[in-house]
Amino acid sequence: MARKSGSSGEKTAIAVREAAIRLIAQHGFAAVSMRQIAREVGVQAGALYLYTPDKQSLLFDILKSHMEDLLSSWQDEAPGSDMAPEARLERFVRFHIRYHISRQDRVFISYMELRNLSPDNFVEIERLRRLYEDVLGEILSDGAAKGVFVMEDIRVTTMAMIAMLTGVSTWFREGGRLGPDDIAAHYISMSLRLAGAHVPMLAVAE
Amino acid sequence: MARKSGSSGEKTAIAVREAAIRLIAQHGFAAVSMRQIAREVGVQAGALYLYTPDKQSLLFDILKSHMEDLLSSWQDEAPGSDMAPEARLERFVRFHIRYHISRQDRVFISYMELRNLSPDNFVEIERLRRLYEDVLGEILSDGAAKGVFVMEDIRVTTMAMIAMLTGVSTWFREGGRLGPDDIAAHYISMSLRLAGAHVPMLAVAE
Repeated sequence: MARKSGSSGEKTAIAVREAAIRLIAQHGFAAVSMRQIAREVGVQAGALYLYTPDKQSLLFDILKSHMEDLLSSWQDEAPGSDMAPEARLERFVRFHIRYHISRQDRVFISYMELRNLSPDNFVEIERLRRLYEDVLGEILSDGAAKGVFVMEDIRVTTMAMIAMLTGVSTWFREGGRLGPDDIAAHYISMSLRLAGAHVPMLAVAE
Repeated sequence: MARKSGSSGEKTAIAVREAAIRLIAQHGFAAVSMRQIAREVGVQAGALYLYTPDKQSLLFDILKSHMEDLLSSWQDEAPGSDMAPEARLERFVRFHIRYHISRQDRVFISYMELRNLSPDNFVEIERLRRLYEDVLGEILSDGAAKGVFVMEDIRVTTMAMIAMLTGVSTWFREGGRLGPDDIAAHYISMSLRLAGAHVPMLAVAE
């Protein structure tokens, strides 16, 4: 995406993206106009084109940077593959939950607006999503190879686990019965069971 | 929703709903006009108001009938509560997967367009969703009470399991590596593990 250099231009570029995320999450991509985004940012409609050539590029930029941020954030805290598979899975689940519940609008758009990507852009986002799925797939494969995880189909378990974990972002609300740490603890325990690990339970419901 | 009586009027009412589901799934609720829906059905825009007073009523009707059909379809095949919890859970998982993968557009709209419901309509759809969640919650509670399921938090496990199962509808494609029956078998096995049941595995990945 073309951007004006310098800090004021970069701030506006970020403001454009944030405004677009808010508006698209609220109304849907097809219903949001470049004019609306410009108004939300407080720039002239014509000035918006200094930051993005068109709405499709803006959507692609939002979805791509979401996936790239997710992948690079994971890289920053990914445990080495010498660590036990159970500990690697625990780290992944904690990371995934924390990352997704603090970015509910981006997560929502990333699933909902896939249909509005151009074919080439869709292929690229799918590639990045697959890279992220493979992070979990590799941890599960490692555990299966070492005999600590026991599951029927690693790919299906990967997809099931990611859907289960990401689902938290649809119902989590700050100030609810469970805080982020309690939720992460529950999902770690459930993920280990889903992977067929034999692990001690937390306090159990009667 | 007001409907013309007689079979031709009822057919048109169904055609209106089907067209709305297709268009909303493709473009999003906010981007679809009553005029577009009328064009898709092949009636005059003015005639559409014989079938629905406005777009909000149409969306509410789509989401409400989706949930009502889901609940009544389950009632038709729900096992008695005298059946073993594992068998009840198996029946539920098979039902949920089959129902959701054959209605991908409706499922997509039911999650994505919650934000576009008026507050009163949202409350009613949430009530119906909660009734459906409670179907699974009750099976899990029954299993916990009988000591065949062991989990930390029944409500969290319920939400996790529904997200895991519904996620299939985002990636399932006819003609893929696994058919609907294989997928159901995997998800039954995973759901039993998630509920903390001790059950034999299917053939296990190396």
